Amino acid sequence: MRVWNFAAGPAMIPLPVLERAQAELVDWRGGMSVMEVSHRGKDFVACAAQAEASLRQLLGIPDNYRVLFLQGGASGQFDAIPLNLTGPGDTVDFFNTGQWSSKAVAASKRQGPEVNVIVDEAASKYTTVPEPGSFQTTPGARYLHYTPNETIGGVEFGYVPQVDPPLVADFSSTILSRPLDVSRFGVIYGGAQKNMGPAGLVVVIVRDDLLGQARPDTPEIWNWTVQAKNDSMLNTPPTFGIYMLGLVLDWVKEQGGLPAMAARNQAKAEALYAAIDQSGFYTNPVAPNARSWMNVPFILPDPALDATFLAGAEQAGLTNLQGHRSVGGMRASIYNAMPLDGVRALIEYMTDFAADHG
Amino acid sequence: MRVWNFAAGPAMIPLPVLERAQAELVDWRGGMSVMEVSHRGKDFVACAAQAEASLRQLLGIPDNYRVLFLQGGASGQFDAIPLNLTGPGDTVDFFNTGQWSSKAVAASKRQGPEVNVIVDEAASKYTTVPEPGSFQTTPGARYLHYTPNETIGGVEFGYVPQVDPPLVADFSSTILSRPLDVSRFGVIYGGAQKNMGPAGLVVVIVRDDLLGQARPDTPEIWNWTVQAKNDSMLNTPPTFGIYMLGLVLDWVKEQGGLPAMAARNQAKAEALYAAIDQSGFYTNPVAPNARSWMNVPFILPDPALDATFLAGAEQAGLTNLQGHRSVGGMRASIYNAMPLDGVRALIEYMTDFAADHG
Repeated sequence: MRVWNFAAGPAMIPLPVLERAQAELVDWRGGMSVMEVSHRGKDFVACAAQAEASLRQLLGIPDNYRVLFLQGGASGQFDAIPLNLTGPGDTVDFFNTGQWSSKAVAASKRQGPEVNVIVDEAASKYTTVPEPGSFQTTPGARYLHYTPNETIGGVEFGYVPQVDPPLVADFSSTILSRPLDVSRFGVIYGGAQKNMGPAGLVVVIVRDDLLGQARPDTPEIWNWTVQAKNDSMLNTPPTFGIYMLGLVLDWVKEQGGLPAMAARNQAKAEALYAAIDQSGFYTNPVAPNARSWMNVPFILPDPALDATFLAGAEQAGLTNLQGHRSVGGMRASIYNAMPLDGVRALIEYMTDFAADHG
Repeated sequence: MRVWNFAAGPAMIPLPVLERAQAELVDWRGGMSVMEVSHRGKDFVACAAQAEASLRQLLGIPDNYRVLFLQGGASGQFDAIPLNLTGPGDTVDFFNTGQWSSKAVAASKRQGPEVNVIVDEAASKYTTVPEPGSFQTTPGARYLHYTPNETIGGVEFGYVPQVDPPLVADFSSTILSRPLDVSRFGVIYGGAQKNMGPAGLVVVIVRDDLLGQARPDTPEIWNWTVQAKNDSMLNTPPTFGIYMLGLVLDWVKEQGGLPAMAARNQAKAEALYAAIDQSGFYTNPVAPNARSWMNVPFILPDPALDATFLAGAEQAGLTNLQGHRSVGGMRASIYNAMPLDGVRALIEYMTDFAADHG
């Protein structure tokens, strides 16, 4: 029996996608697994091109953006971004809204640019996002980096910042969760292991005027300009991950695309937050206007109940609910592949548990 | 029907491994795919630990070596090696025996150390390896990097160089193909997509006295010291690739381990080279003492026959035989997963083709 898996990533993959991958795992397009085919052969080249085309269609990616399929995760891009976009004496701006922003800041500092953290939500213990228009970028900043969704804190921006420098944004946990105006961004990137497939693939969407600026010491596999020229095949790409991405994107299209995903994700999130708020038992620490649709932390009134809650959840087929150690309590990650039924099952369990222990 | 796939990588994976992965793709250890489980959950942590234990057992990796499961391929390590092992003013030595050596040289130059190519087989058009003892390392060199097997040229070292600096070696195409004395090396690394599983995983085996020297600007996901402290889970690892590696290693054990793989690989290679040499039709350009057991290029007497040869091979279920454009002709990559029967089928086809066109 399949369980409802609330892991923060790697996370649920739609069952029809897994079943399709299973059916053709040994024999994909004539006598070989997709894992065994040459990345330069026509079958795989077509597979990667189709995945890119689907992503372009779903996100409405304009023609002046390049789509790259790379390795090393979003964490690798934390270093690759300043290597690709900054030179001596350059300044970059950051919002710090939690742990993933902080890691990106640390990597940028390692790579040399002057880093200005122009917004830091420390005062709220990272349970808020800045008000639109409440910040000023540094004159001449090469870009503003931010984290539209903090996976650990469960904090999501409900808007896209309007600023002069190009926006560089880590969409690992929210890409494909709702429509996005790509033209507002310089760079969008995200690890695949939440909404796009298995771990080991990172997608980078870069506006083409930002290419051509990589430092000479940029590792070539992360040199966006070189990889763009090589259709992301400078070296062997993570072929199985790209194949799985293609299947996930087909599934998103079948569901009705990003407007349908947004409606479904909103319904899931609203139901869960309502259950938390109305429980008089569970609490979510995040400011209402910054609550994530994808990652929902909730705290029990007494941490001594956590183990009992988790054990009962496991029994009920609700897994991976333990919160991040820095936040405590529970966290339900409810990415695209989690259906409303899974959220309903969680709410039912939570309601029963509160009645028994409240 | 499964074909005989001679691709240079990604390459054949043993059928029992694929079938096992297929059987449990949707439900691995209770209601989830291995692709969906948290990398920090006990099931996956045990899976990764088991893969490491199997690799240690098969290769006889001494306790003073760390095994890392990273991303970005061997090409990423071309940059990571000098970042982890060199500082200002350091010199590193290289053997250049072909295209993969050259790429490693270029990456090292990008990362700053003084690069001395102490052996360059250009004179033979990279069809040879240096004689043992015919080279001198640079006094004080931080390491000697070499490529024990050149996948494109089909050139393999039949010995391990005896030198003072630590040896750093790209074993992408030969790891697990025969027994190896790991204690002779400072660093062994290799992409998984030839003898270890699907693309997207690179294995690094590093002697622990070489840790602790990474430059401050080393991208953290490639900082061997940091990743060793984090059991390769600083960020989300390529979980499915690690799982597949574990299955492949189980299969290698079932075959009898590396001595059995060596016997089988030697028999395959000897049969194929004998067929080439005795044909009076095909030629292999590599010096006999440097012929690879894994990658066997062979040239037809007239390039005009190449297309006919390839079309007929495809008909006979023998795929991906086209040689690299820089060498021309054909290349049969016969990694661990290629059985002797596949090589026999190739030889039979080659013999018939030569009879028809000779």
